[in-house]
Amino acid sequence: MEYSREALIEAVSAQMPDKRWKHTLGVMESAVKLAGRYGADPGRAETAAIMHDVAKYWAVERMRKIIEENALSQELLSHDKQLWHAEVGAFVAEKEYGIHDLEVLDAIRYHTSGREGMGLLEKVVCLADYIEPGRDFPGVDEIRKLAKVSLEQGLVEGFDSTIRVLLEKRRIVFPLTVLARNDLVRALEEKR
Amino acid sequence: MEYSREALIEAVSAQMPDKRWKHTLGVMESAVKLAGRYGADPGRAETAAIMHDVAKYWAVERMRKIIEENALSQELLSHDKQLWHAEVGAFVAEKEYGIHDLEVLDAIRYHTSGREGMGLLEKVVCLADYIEPGRDFPGVDEIRKLAKVSLEQGLVEGFDSTIRVLLEKRRIVFPLTVLARNDLVRALEEKR
Repeated sequence: MEYSREALIEAVSAQMPDKRWKHTLGVMESAVKLAGRYGADPGRAETAAIMHDVAKYWAVERMRKIIEENALSQELLSHDKQLWHAEVGAFVAEKEYGIHDLEVLDAIRYHTSGREGMGLLEKVVCLADYIEPGRDFPGVDEIRKLAKVSLEQGLVEGFDSTIRVLLEKRRIVFPLTVLARNDLVRALEEKR
Repeated sequence: MEYSREALIEAVSAQMPDKRWKHTLGVMESAVKLAGRYGADPGRAETAAIMHDVAKYWAVERMRKIIEENALSQELLSHDKQLWHAEVGAFVAEKEYGIHDLEVLDAIRYHTSGREGMGLLEKVVCLADYIEPGRDFPGVDEIRKLAKVSLEQGLVEGFDSTIRVLLEKRRIVFPLTVLARNDLVRALEEKR
């Protein structure tokens, strides 16, 4: 079945605390703006934004079950649990909410990690997740500034800030994120 | 043919500026110390240290030719040229200098990037390359301090400093290095 925009919003907002839903509203707003600025479809960007954290507050075991039963990604279970909600979210968006737009699904799937060869909609949603108005972390204003100049520059700054925080905390650095920022750094070099 | 220690030193030192040879002498000294501290063979650690930068000052085209003609690593040519000298060095150590000790060769091959599942000798030479007495970069004293406590802790600190510098300079971050430090971070977690 397909959900209207309003039905999606109702269904998703019920699955997280108010504070996180406020974050999602911010990502929707930023994603629509970035889409307008960089030539992506604002409606699809908004749909991906609505859905991006749908599984964020699900119990780990509920996510693990979905990953195992549906062979989502052989590697995912070995990754940091922080990444699970993104892939599970994309799965749920398709199976439960009838979203079949592959670019929207990839924008949900890669919104946390990024990946090599990110598409336009993926970049928009991922960057919106960094800069939505409610975000407040060291360096966010620099990312916001760069987001006005270039999607890619904003994203590199965002990914680099994530990597720095993970190094600082002695946590696992997602290899996909490193591949994503290397890829963007190379693309920016070639543009020069 | 096999080379004596003295013949190796003579052959290798002739292939780099005095300053770099001084660095190699430092790595030899630190590698022997670390080997003694952590139960590796000091002689093999020294041999790897003597050889580790043998190709560092070779022309890029000379390295490219060796990589292409010998199918060294399908990925290597797409990597940063900074990494080429390590793999070419291991190749040359075997083919020209008759070193067939696989652990010594791997210690040369991975001394810059590291990799997942590093062996003891690899860790010793890689860490020695960070902390030899001539090194002077922000954070080196912290790495030296940790090197007295644990090979793994010293290496994580070293890799993290490399990653931070590469982020800072907007350069490509070697994926192998991220995999190496993640692997060591996991191993240290499990030890706790």
